[in-house]
Amino acid sequence: MEASLQAALEALSDPIRRRIVRELAQVPDWSRPCGTFNELPVAKSTLSHHFSVLRNVGLLEQRDEGARRLNRLRKAEFDERFPGLLDLVLSEP
Amino acid sequence: MEASLQAALEALSDPIRRRIVRELAQVPDWSRPCGTFNELPVAKSTLSHHFSVLRNVGLLEQRDEGARRLNRLRKAEFDERFPGLLDLVLSEP
Repeated sequence: MEASLQAALEALSDPIRRRIVRELAQVPDWSRPCGTFNELPVAKSTLSHHFSVLRNVGLLEQRDEGARRLNRLRKAEFDERFPGLLDLVLSEP
Repeated sequence: MEASLQAALEALSDPIRRRIVRELAQVPDWSRPCGTFNELPVAKSTLSHHFSVLRNVGLLEQRDEGARRLNRLRKAEFDERFPGLLDLVLSEP
């Protein structure tokens, strides 16, 4: 993973993106499709942008399964690149 | 220190502010006046804003000594509030 610290901090500077990350940390890998995040108070296109930012910074892996796009939080990989950063996000209330 | 993670991430999402933090980490407390940062490629007013952001988020303590404003990085305090975050900044090349 080659994301810069700049990109990682920017990605996590958005409260909706941190919430997506926290929610994904609470479920098994590949169990939560993007379509199940529509309780978040943002437009669908904005949500799609947030997923893209998280993916580009190496926090998220996605795969399509039929009509659903499933997600995996790349916790171990991100922890190795930026020790402690994800834990700060996950410990946020 | 009651800064939110949101404020901390925003404060550190700026490369000039991270550079100020790294430079202050390399010198003893209270040894570096604000006026000695004019090698940074920003206007004086912008620099002043950066110092203010760092101070408001609890990363910086300042005191005036004659015409000079001296700085102290609040490393221990910030580390306690946001474990690992400052180390990521300090280990950035």
